[in-house]
Amino acid sequence: MNLSVRELAEQARVAQRAVAALDADGRRRLIWAMADELSVGRGAVLAANVEDMARAEAAGTRGAMLDRLRLDDGRIDGIVSALREIAAQDDPVGAVTRQQTLPNGLLVERQRLPLGLIAMIYEARPNVTADAAALCIKAGNAVLLRGGSEARSSNAAIAACLHAALCANDLPEAAVSVITDPAREHVLELLQLSDLIDLAIPRGGESLIRFVAENARVPVIKHYKGVCHLYVDRAADADKALDLLVDGKTSRPGVCNALETLLVHIDRVDDLLPQLVEMLAAHGVTIHGCERSRTRLPDIEAIEEVGFDREYLDLEVSLKLVDSLEEALAHIVKHGSDHTEVIVTEDAGAADNFVRGVRSSAVMVNASSRFNDGGQLGLGAEIGISTTRLHAYGPMGAESLTIERFVVRGEGQVRHPESRQARGDR
Amino acid sequence: MNLSVRELAEQARVAQRAVAALDADGRRRLIWAMADELSVGRGAVLAANVEDMARAEAAGTRGAMLDRLRLDDGRIDGIVSALREIAAQDDPVGAVTRQQTLPNGLLVERQRLPLGLIAMIYEARPNVTADAAALCIKAGNAVLLRGGSEARSSNAAIAACLHAALCANDLPEAAVSVITDPAREHVLELLQLSDLIDLAIPRGGESLIRFVAENARVPVIKHYKGVCHLYVDRAADADKALDLLVDGKTSRPGVCNALETLLVHIDRVDDLLPQLVEMLAAHGVTIHGCERSRTRLPDIEAIEEVGFDREYLDLEVSLKLVDSLEEALAHIVKHGSDHTEVIVTEDAGAADNFVRGVRSSAVMVNASSRFNDGGQLGLGAEIGISTTRLHAYGPMGAESLTIERFVVRGEGQVRHPESRQARGDR
Repeated sequence: MNLSVRELAEQARVAQRAVAALDADGRRRLIWAMADELSVGRGAVLAANVEDMARAEAAGTRGAMLDRLRLDDGRIDGIVSALREIAAQDDPVGAVTRQQTLPNGLLVERQRLPLGLIAMIYEARPNVTADAAALCIKAGNAVLLRGGSEARSSNAAIAACLHAALCANDLPEAAVSVITDPAREHVLELLQLSDLIDLAIPRGGESLIRFVAENARVPVIKHYKGVCHLYVDRAADADKALDLLVDGKTSRPGVCNALETLLVHIDRVDDLLPQLVEMLAAHGVTIHGCERSRTRLPDIEAIEEVGFDREYLDLEVSLKLVDSLEEALAHIVKHGSDHTEVIVTEDAGAADNFVRGVRSSAVMVNASSRFNDGGQLGLGAEIGISTTRLHAYGPMGAESLTIERFVVRGEGQVRHPESRQARGDR
Repeated sequence: MNLSVRELAEQARVAQRAVAALDADGRRRLIWAMADELSVGRGAVLAANVEDMARAEAAGTRGAMLDRLRLDDGRIDGIVSALREIAAQDDPVGAVTRQQTLPNGLLVERQRLPLGLIAMIYEARPNVTADAAALCIKAGNAVLLRGGSEARSSNAAIAACLHAALCANDLPEAAVSVITDPAREHVLELLQLSDLIDLAIPRGGESLIRFVAENARVPVIKHYKGVCHLYVDRAADADKALDLLVDGKTSRPGVCNALETLLVHIDRVDDLLPQLVEMLAAHGVTIHGCERSRTRLPDIEAIEEVGFDREYLDLEVSLKLVDSLEEALAHIVKHGSDHTEVIVTEDAGAADNFVRGVRSSAVMVNASSRFNDGGQLGLGAEIGISTTRLHAYGPMGAESLTIERFVVRGEGQVRHPESRQARGDR
């Protein structure tokens, strides 16, 4: 890297003005062009990904991590169509969200403004490079991308496609700036630039998030781990419980909205627990159970209390039997990560108590944890899922990359008309 | 202080659950009771304020700072009525802000949740103690208050009234916790409690804000200084310009939404500038002008470039002549503090360009900067004016002390129905 991180950020900040100055159609065309460049340039991206995968496998990277890193034609198609969806969305910049005329005649509007320059610090999944860039641009921002070294070839190839689209639209490449040098000092430097960077979004594992949280002088929204719970209530429908467990745990175990813990009401240990366990076994899921569950299921692994904090990201699950919904809630408050919690119940009162009792970014009643995703919840693509209870909580789309400010229009109104008197008096 | 800051925060965090568990009427009654206790107990508060004022005067505190500290019967009435307004507002907790049924039948809601435990770190104005507590409670939060040592007697007396209201409503006093020991180490300790505190709001001068920003491990929203500009456009109405200047600069110079800088289009130096200057002189305002303005107004003080960054908080103003709206915008981007900017113009195109060109928390077209205030803009009371472009920007009312999360209700929907197939296959 020839430029320092500060120089990169300064250039990105200047480029942001050009992105913000585009009209809605301009930003739409730009993101569409990014999708086209990626679709046409996929050969180079896939070749780069083969390099990253080979390096990762040689380094002994395990299942879920490898799955996150991997690209194929289908996943490139997924990125391209995500970008086209982002392009097609309503432009959030300048949108007036509320309007009110006050008794004194002032017209008060709330209007969306880009945040400015966003630093995205992430690991593994190379699709984040494209998604994050497109979403930041959609909201009139510039972005500084710092991906993980394991995906460096893929990220560079994707960034080249994005830069080609910027150039073709006469916009500075610096609007999507990439830190390619893997040294962590660059992240450290970036996190000090409170005069240039408006928001840092770390998205990744514990070590990355901790590093960012402990060193940042810029505002941070964490996209942290998901220790997601499925609570099978006394009044659970058996079929729904089985469906939600298998979808939540096995459909893509390496992602943050996958289930990690199964809580089962004690009244359902005779009729439903055996079916749930059989289902997990059929899908190759290892169970780590509480002491009480092991008196009934002696073949499962034992779990220590601390084990309930674990995000397996793999075909493993924690199991605990609870005497009540309240005990389930207390467990979630103690061991959860504020990400996603699910209740399976036909009892509307129990559902309401569950919703009130958890404060996670998404609460699901009889629906899969895997729906906690911007695309699935109607936001279009997402830059990630915030687990910071500030600004945005849960999936963050383009709108979450703006801020509302006040625009006030008057006819010369003043707050203290007596000042006018003083003028008359002079 | 017998309890450590961590112990105080732990108690406040437990108390928060009791505040969040109240229904809307419960929180309304509680805040109304706080207003009553303050109104009835004003004697003790005013007596305490006399102590603070005497100490401050003895320490040589100057005009604007003294004005911020002072309480009298009218200001107590103001606090009491602000609390009653907060009580009367719609309760934000649990409010559903959006609702959507997706094609797969999922009902997706966005629902407001309290932030949790808020630490308020502020200086001078003792009314903040009551306003901040009431707003945090209204939004279902607990609050940890750390006021300035200069107002410690007033703050303690106000807190005693608030605690009396909590007790009378069978709620823990810890819901409004006060750090009374003036040592700054306590602020430092508080800012490290990222497991307990969801948001810190520093509100005060440069030294306080810098200390918090540099030491916080918890999320921070700054309520920082206002270097507010009034731009008198080529197409300005003279009378409006005079009214907005005198209201913005002189009606309460010690507050953050007061004007600090006057920018005048060069085309108006002959007809309007002399009137503006005469008006300022009539109100005892000292002018610090740019070189060009001093060739026309040799009697005014000279200003260095760096002087344009100053927040006088007093009867002083910076003056600069500009050749165009673009030059005014460039000056604001360089020297502004993202607080409040005003344009006086009868030209709708110029107004739009000004609104687009500044990214401050409030932009005023032909309206006084002094309207950038929660009460004035229809939010009811405010906990302060955010100059952090994240979460909330501009005046923050009770709604800004909540976060939206996702509540999803289904009938057993899963994301990957093929998992079900696997089940059928086994």
